[in-house]
Amino acid sequence: MASQHALPVTRAGNFAAWYQAVIAEADLAEESGVRGCMIMRPWGYGIWQRMQQLLDRRFCETGHENCYFPIFIPLSFIAKEAEHVEGFAKEMAVVTHHRLKNIDGRLQPDPDAELEEPLIVRPTSETLIGAAFQRWIRSHRDLPLLLNQWANVVRWEMRPRLFLRTAEFLWQEGHTAHATHAEALEETLRMLEVYRSFSEDALAMPVIAGEKPAHERFPGAERTFSIEAMMQDGKALQAGTAHYLGTHFARAQNIRYQTDRGDLEYAHTTSWGVSTRLVGGVVMTHGDDDGLRLPPVIAPRQILLVPILRDRPEDTAVAQYCTELAADINQGVAFGEPVRASVDRRAGRAIDKRWSYIKRGVPIVCEVGARDMQASAVTLIRRDRTRHGEQIESKTLTRNEFAQTAGALLSEIQAALHGEARTRLFANISSQFETLDDLEAYFQDSTDTEAFRGWAEVAWARPEGAALEAVDAKLKALKLTIRNAPLQQKSAAGRRCLFSAAPASEFVLVGRAY
Amino acid sequence: MASQHALPVTRAGNFAAWYQAVIAEADLAEESGVRGCMIMRPWGYGIWQRMQQLLDRRFCETGHENCYFPIFIPLSFIAKEAEHVEGFAKEMAVVTHHRLKNIDGRLQPDPDAELEEPLIVRPTSETLIGAAFQRWIRSHRDLPLLLNQWANVVRWEMRPRLFLRTAEFLWQEGHTAHATHAEALEETLRMLEVYRSFSEDALAMPVIAGEKPAHERFPGAERTFSIEAMMQDGKALQAGTAHYLGTHFARAQNIRYQTDRGDLEYAHTTSWGVSTRLVGGVVMTHGDDDGLRLPPVIAPRQILLVPILRDRPEDTAVAQYCTELAADINQGVAFGEPVRASVDRRAGRAIDKRWSYIKRGVPIVCEVGARDMQASAVTLIRRDRTRHGEQIESKTLTRNEFAQTAGALLSEIQAALHGEARTRLFANISSQFETLDDLEAYFQDSTDTEAFRGWAEVAWARPEGAALEAVDAKLKALKLTIRNAPLQQKSAAGRRCLFSAAPASEFVLVGRAY
Repeated sequence: MASQHALPVTRAGNFAAWYQAVIAEADLAEESGVRGCMIMRPWGYGIWQRMQQLLDRRFCETGHENCYFPIFIPLSFIAKEAEHVEGFAKEMAVVTHHRLKNIDGRLQPDPDAELEEPLIVRPTSETLIGAAFQRWIRSHRDLPLLLNQWANVVRWEMRPRLFLRTAEFLWQEGHTAHATHAEALEETLRMLEVYRSFSEDALAMPVIAGEKPAHERFPGAERTFSIEAMMQDGKALQAGTAHYLGTHFARAQNIRYQTDRGDLEYAHTTSWGVSTRLVGGVVMTHGDDDGLRLPPVIAPRQILLVPILRDRPEDTAVAQYCTELAADINQGVAFGEPVRASVDRRAGRAIDKRWSYIKRGVPIVCEVGARDMQASAVTLIRRDRTRHGEQIESKTLTRNEFAQTAGALLSEIQAALHGEARTRLFANISSQFETLDDLEAYFQDSTDTEAFRGWAEVAWARPEGAALEAVDAKLKALKLTIRNAPLQQKSAAGRRCLFSAAPASEFVLVGRAY
Repeated sequence: MASQHALPVTRAGNFAAWYQAVIAEADLAEESGVRGCMIMRPWGYGIWQRMQQLLDRRFCETGHENCYFPIFIPLSFIAKEAEHVEGFAKEMAVVTHHRLKNIDGRLQPDPDAELEEPLIVRPTSETLIGAAFQRWIRSHRDLPLLLNQWANVVRWEMRPRLFLRTAEFLWQEGHTAHATHAEALEETLRMLEVYRSFSEDALAMPVIAGEKPAHERFPGAERTFSIEAMMQDGKALQAGTAHYLGTHFARAQNIRYQTDRGDLEYAHTTSWGVSTRLVGGVVMTHGDDDGLRLPPVIAPRQILLVPILRDRPEDTAVAQYCTELAADINQGVAFGEPVRASVDRRAGRAIDKRWSYIKRGVPIVCEVGARDMQASAVTLIRRDRTRHGEQIESKTLTRNEFAQTAGALLSEIQAALHGEARTRLFANISSQFETLDDLEAYFQDSTDTEAFRGWAEVAWARPEGAALEAVDAKLKALKLTIRNAPLQQKSAAGRRCLFSAAPASEFVLVGRAY
């Protein structure tokens, strides 16, 4: 494999095609034949399941409980929501019949089984959960109410893309109610921080946590916060959002509680969510031209031992050597959990297996032959640095050394992936922009290409209303959007707004986005 | 509470109403306002989540991998399945539009957004997974293919009942493909055994594993197996099924593999599933007139410490005493996992909290007051024996004794609940039936009542075709069905078939059922 890589297309060659290739070659997902819906294959679903477990633990530790609301929402609920939420999206899957019937030899919706009221496949459970809050909340003693739901949701997507934008996707939606503005805002920021630390620590995906400008808020939200990750093509991926909804939804759904003085007050609510989109984010953050590279924390299998079997008498001993080694390794601990090593004993050539695991991004892949066994050794490939130049880089350790240090090695890989992505993120936020012309010049030559430009950090005066719309329009012409105003940022004192030249109030990040 | 129980209705008084009362009072679930769909509240969902974790571990240990298929199935797939499966159910939710539009002031399905091909909300993923098997399976090296999916499914139910029969429910569906009949049948029985041992060990719910008679098979299956549990009203609950599908589905979907000799052969497939119905089974197996009793293995919280707070200075110390005790208890292990004890520090009267936890079925509930603290003691209520006669039974242990023996106490409770249910099951399988008249006499006087009759074990000659239909009709007139032919049973040699008087081939269990 001297000068070739494992994928048929490189990131530099065609980033979008490379992304599709990783998804396919790493067995993450595939098109289902159902418009906009994907099949998550075991490796892809396994990564999501790991994310789910780790997030669920964090939600639980911060006092949330899981529940489950129906997949269907009556049209009347949606109609009510549409009334009070501007910018409400109407692309949704509508169930109109409850039976199929064979008519003239063709199975079709039975005209006699039309629903009196159409049902909508949930695009989010906001409205059903709000109605439950209205029933469940009576007194200040019922607050805070801290719920989360793991579910599938459906949004009709015109240009679906595996993991990033699919008609059906899996996600979690947190919904909470609080007595005061301060508590609800604290909750919103707490969950934003859960997302931020989860992205950094588990996904090894550095993100900028910040607040969305007014025109990018969730419809109905008073404040919207996001974490934004930089993909390897320089585009931003909004990886998670947390909304402080004020009393807006509470007023629309009459969610009130009795204070300890006996008054009736509206509750302050929040919502927050992440989705299977995160899998796409991991691919575009860590993948290379050999396929996916998985941070060990979320890898369903962290170490794969591939016995080299040659239809010879020593095959059994080699396989046995691997099995015992895996058992030893799994006594070890990485990231507070037992290490996950396994042996691939299926029929097939070792070199094919090796490449399949490299493409899947298994953090450590070992081919083990009779010679390794005789020498009590292991030769391993670290997926964070698969190649030295164009050659595959491998390293030999004694069996026992490997068994004892596997956990530490995985930590090293996790840190290396994180460090690499973090360096890239901060190296690609430019801040030399004083005027819109500067910004235009920087991004313009790449308007119609996929050329890497990263993000721009620009000072602004936080315009509102028509002024904000004008800014948005100017940026859109450059295919740019404001990602967020980072929570942690240097003072903008003395700086001028890029758009109006008024005294700046803060910095915002501007970039292209998925 | 001398002669009263915590629920407004007793099992003996009205079993169906009692069931609804437990679901409501234990905060398990509630109607959503969406036809046939329920809201699983945190306590109910928490129980399901425990079941999920424990089953998922077992599926993984038996070599299965999780995946995820779309919520929607194109109508053409369903039409194809309908052709080759007799008894195919046509009650399903049909999506016909992808947009809502405000027309004449009313939000409704947009006539311009009608789908070219309607989509069905999956009643099972059988057909989509079969199509994927057809793509994924090429060679004998690809077999066995062992997949599982955790998902929501929808079946239009005319008479929904919380957990037992809901339009939407949560379940897992296993789908596997094998090279041979023998391997596929072995897989079917392996998963049946996983369900059986899970029911007994985790749910403390004794079941009879057996094979369904021909007319009760899953449409298209060659053999269907089930586990059947006896509820406290004597009715059977089919708690899980495993199907050996032969090559029937493989032929319909062209799932073939190349053998090592190069021939093309049809794969043998299986499918198996359990659902949120299990939560209903746990309620009707273990509940009493004070509410739910939860087997500790699946209790989201196993021990609840309720500090008695009286707005006095010692309150802080009492709460602190509880917090430290819970931390100590949680150092312990029950069923191979850390014990799950927690403290309820919310505002509210201790006695109200006690009853809320009793109704929810928390295995051990402790109210802790200043006197307990001063004596370094704990007074506890074991939910498996809440009352002695009609009095609440409590027991006092020293703090340290309780902390050290909590795990053992939980094991004792788990075993007690299992033993109680097991005794009831076997005491209520009657076997004195020689003729249909005997059976009729036994069940007849309760045909229109809810009177407890348990199950009948009857010998039969395994009739087929019209003879079987006649048997089924006779039983149906008595509101009875054949549940299964137990895998473990005594020899029927020398016995006569209850229906035909021919020499019997086996025993089957007959009863009323949910």
